[in-house]
Amino acid sequence: MTIVHILHTNGITMDWDLIVVGGGPAGLSAGLYGVRAELETLVLESRQPGGQIATAGIVENYPGFPEGIMGIKLAENFRLQAEKAGAQILPMQEVESVEIERNRFLVRSNSNSYFARAVIIATGLRHRKLGVQGEKEFTGRGVSYCFTCDGPFFRDKNVVVVGSGTSAVEAALYLGKLAKNVKMIMKAKNYAPREKIQYSRMKNSGIETIPLTEVIEIYGDELVRGIKIRNLKNGELGEIETDGVFVEIGKTPNTDFLKNLPIKMDSAGYVITNDRQETNIPGIFAAGDVTSASVKQLGVAVAQGTVAALQAYAYLNGRG
Amino acid sequence: MTIVHILHTNGITMDWDLIVVGGGPAGLSAGLYGVRAELETLVLESRQPGGQIATAGIVENYPGFPEGIMGIKLAENFRLQAEKAGAQILPMQEVESVEIERNRFLVRSNSNSYFARAVIIATGLRHRKLGVQGEKEFTGRGVSYCFTCDGPFFRDKNVVVVGSGTSAVEAALYLGKLAKNVKMIMKAKNYAPREKIQYSRMKNSGIETIPLTEVIEIYGDELVRGIKIRNLKNGELGEIETDGVFVEIGKTPNTDFLKNLPIKMDSAGYVITNDRQETNIPGIFAAGDVTSASVKQLGVAVAQGTVAALQAYAYLNGRG
Repeated sequence: MTIVHILHTNGITMDWDLIVVGGGPAGLSAGLYGVRAELETLVLESRQPGGQIATAGIVENYPGFPEGIMGIKLAENFRLQAEKAGAQILPMQEVESVEIERNRFLVRSNSNSYFARAVIIATGLRHRKLGVQGEKEFTGRGVSYCFTCDGPFFRDKNVVVVGSGTSAVEAALYLGKLAKNVKMIMKAKNYAPREKIQYSRMKNSGIETIPLTEVIEIYGDELVRGIKIRNLKNGELGEIETDGVFVEIGKTPNTDFLKNLPIKMDSAGYVITNDRQETNIPGIFAAGDVTSASVKQLGVAVAQGTVAALQAYAYLNGRG
Repeated sequence: MTIVHILHTNGITMDWDLIVVGGGPAGLSAGLYGVRAELETLVLESRQPGGQIATAGIVENYPGFPEGIMGIKLAENFRLQAEKAGAQILPMQEVESVEIERNRFLVRSNSNSYFARAVIIATGLRHRKLGVQGEKEFTGRGVSYCFTCDGPFFRDKNVVVVGSGTSAVEAALYLGKLAKNVKMIMKAKNYAPREKIQYSRMKNSGIETIPLTEVIEIYGDELVRGIKIRNLKNGELGEIETDGVFVEIGKTPNTDFLKNLPIKMDSAGYVITNDRQETNIPGIFAAGDVTSASVKQLGVAVAQGTVAALQAYAYLNGRG
């Protein structure tokens, strides 16, 4: 009921104990633990709850599911569990700023403003863009940042994967099973996934790699038709005809909305926390992939959301 | 096959990349991530895999299970997942010492010795004892440290719970639903569970509390018949007839086997780690409830096991 009120009355300001910015695994875990600690907890998600995990294929490394679980199903479970416990989750709320107002925080989204006594930042990462001509124009028309979402549209077609890290390798292996042809284009000399097993799978896949090469343009008509490339060693130019361009050149934290807040971040824009998920601002915590923690794993994000909510509870009860 | 060999050949020494001491959620997650990183990984568990979670009732706060999941089922899932991935898990291996032998570690159990290039300590906690006359004698005959395991034997009987923290409150609430009468005996003035909701449930339960009181003896014949108590304020002695004594006065880390290792622990015996789960000894990591981390939650233990294994992998590959 409160929800309907908020959604339909523009400009209304609501008071919460805890606002969690971001509805991925870290944010939804924080929401679950917030309400379990009897905090009035609101989770604001810029799109739909679930975060990156909702776009993953089968998740085999989240402990508790010996047969694996589909990413979208696991995301749905996280959301359901937090909601059942009593967390309010609002989708399509792009948070634009967090401001300090005396002893509370003002959180402004694209459509509303909310007050909170404590805030947890769990906005995760977004895909890095190539920044070349045609990239924006053809996004959704051949250019994709989510191979598990869009891969099936390219069955028996030609695709390229741009990148050399874990995600690029995963994309190439995934697409290798359904596309007619997959080429991996990378600035590096060779691919370098996080896990050895991905390396050996890639080695045995027969997928063609084009090393020391950058993409300089994406072209087409209604849809992508090809890319222009440049060899980084000798400057030679070339072209590759392709139906799909999967960009997997890394991720960057979603912290633009924090630019007016004196919150400490590292040089790459990740929020710095201690092991209690506290930032340098009392009352503001951070959890999950948006933090500078070295290990980016689903289970770690979940645990950080848990710890952040318990610390927010301690903070609000004078024990922070 | 290796397993049978180890179990039946006394005194054999085996070489592993990674040995995880303890097969609870932290240890099994470490096992899962160890083998995923292609480390030859052995998990040694003193009893049966699962840890404390296997004795919990329904678990509602592990993200991923919106309907909750029985502790014993979740423990089984953790074990299955690690085993399916390729971890070797040996039950009934009480580890007695870890020794540094040049650039590897010698792990001695009650029945065997193993070498490892890296070790993760994930031995968790055990229940603290009262240390009073009759306690040891009547353990299993009325004295219990696991209300979810033994509670059902006390249906329609009289029981006491000793303690005032979260576990004591959980025990009292659980037993309140099946026993004829539950009394809570505590040295403190009042119970103090971690979560507010437990506090209000307790307040509304009608369970009798006997504050500022200690148990000084447990007596009986074949079975427990009662306890002797002392009021801490006025020294007055008393007796309570009871069929069951559930001791919930806290837990203590299982670190006795580390006493000859120069590993840093805090004053309560918890292993000190940094946020990469590294101890002060290169190659030895720790994860879960045995560490000095402030938040003792299932999800946190799982994440710490994950991080410990990934760091062990980095260490073994010269990036630690």
